[in-house]
Amino acid sequence: MTNVPIVFGAPYSTYTRTVLLALEEKGVAYGFRLVDFLKGDAKLPEYLARHPFGKVPAFEHGSLRLYEAGAITRYVDEAFGGPRLQPPDITSRARMMQAIGIIESYIYPSVVGAIVIQRLVNPALGKKPDEQTIERSIPRARKSLGVLETFLEGSTFLTGDAVSLADLYLVPMFDYLMQTPEGAPVTDDLPLLLRWWKDIGERPSVDKTHATLP
Amino acid sequence: MTNVPIVFGAPYSTYTRTVLLALEEKGVAYGFRLVDFLKGDAKLPEYLARHPFGKVPAFEHGSLRLYEAGAITRYVDEAFGGPRLQPPDITSRARMMQAIGIIESYIYPSVVGAIVIQRLVNPALGKKPDEQTIERSIPRARKSLGVLETFLEGSTFLTGDAVSLADLYLVPMFDYLMQTPEGAPVTDDLPLLLRWWKDIGERPSVDKTHATLP
Repeated sequence: MTNVPIVFGAPYSTYTRTVLLALEEKGVAYGFRLVDFLKGDAKLPEYLARHPFGKVPAFEHGSLRLYEAGAITRYVDEAFGGPRLQPPDITSRARMMQAIGIIESYIYPSVVGAIVIQRLVNPALGKKPDEQTIERSIPRARKSLGVLETFLEGSTFLTGDAVSLADLYLVPMFDYLMQTPEGAPVTDDLPLLLRWWKDIGERPSVDKTHATLP
Repeated sequence: MTNVPIVFGAPYSTYTRTVLLALEEKGVAYGFRLVDFLKGDAKLPEYLARHPFGKVPAFEHGSLRLYEAGAITRYVDEAFGGPRLQPPDITSRARMMQAIGIIESYIYPSVVGAIVIQRLVNPALGKKPDEQTIERSIPRARKSLGVLETFLEGSTFLTGDAVSLADLYLVPMFDYLMQTPEGAPVTDDLPLLLRWWKDIGERPSVDKTHATLP
């Protein structure tokens, strides 16, 4: 049995990319199986046996099968060598979990669920963006990113001077946002996040996992 | 300065109760400040300074202020003595994170967001339940709880023979579900979850944090 972990997902999925970023940052060799969910691959019986809710990513390591990004990323950090992606002190770990919660509960719905879906995904699927949804989401996106901006006061990355899982959750969402015309106006008064984006964008992991929509 | 942690929230909020359950299971002394969000308390400026998104729970310990249940519960487990609420082995911790992800992403929306809101919260606010929403949510609730049922095969609690944070996420949601007429039919082919509910219901933490809607 080979003990190389395998990721099941789509490179263009934000949560798939977060898992890939974690593996790249750890320097772990891994396999990848494409689950092209925009084409319906995640609803095929074979994949549903692995992930009963039909979402990506999923993960396998030896006899362990997992899904849910929070489970996979914590496992990747704790099961493999390489740099730690969770801060060593309890308070910083709590702040990391808080940043991830903010990204999942507030940034994902406004930035990805609204602006990115309407502006990038719908046109790729031949659908028109809903301008009203975009308009309504701009203040929410600005507000939720503004809360994360405060995490960067006096800190290179979201939870200190080393990259943590929180940064790896934000990268794919921020990358897509900056590809939309809304990216610049939403972030124009968030200098720390723009500096963070420039810094983290230079990491090989970010370059290697960059993906465009099909 | 007293170093007793303080929880801000409403006893009837599921995520507030999860935090209280964690503190009770650890045996930590804590303070509690009511934020009666059904009356709008979470949108008052004083509370928004603590939680800019105006949700409960929030948490304070010395100079640390936190919100997001995932951050608070991990901090409570790691910062205080008492029984560990995260399994010691990496694979079981990953399964715990997966169970929490399933509870947040699939069980909360169908069980709490639909059935409990319509059947218990709306009537308490003088509104009629939307029977169509309830009807549509029953198969989703049954399916998502059915996935958690598999976590209990050969195991007393969701991630082994000791209570973990995953159990403490499920307790408040399951408690409300079983107060609705949908509780019995949704769980009638989930014997392991019903056995789990009977077992965990006998714990003093569950009794002490039991709350009814206002």
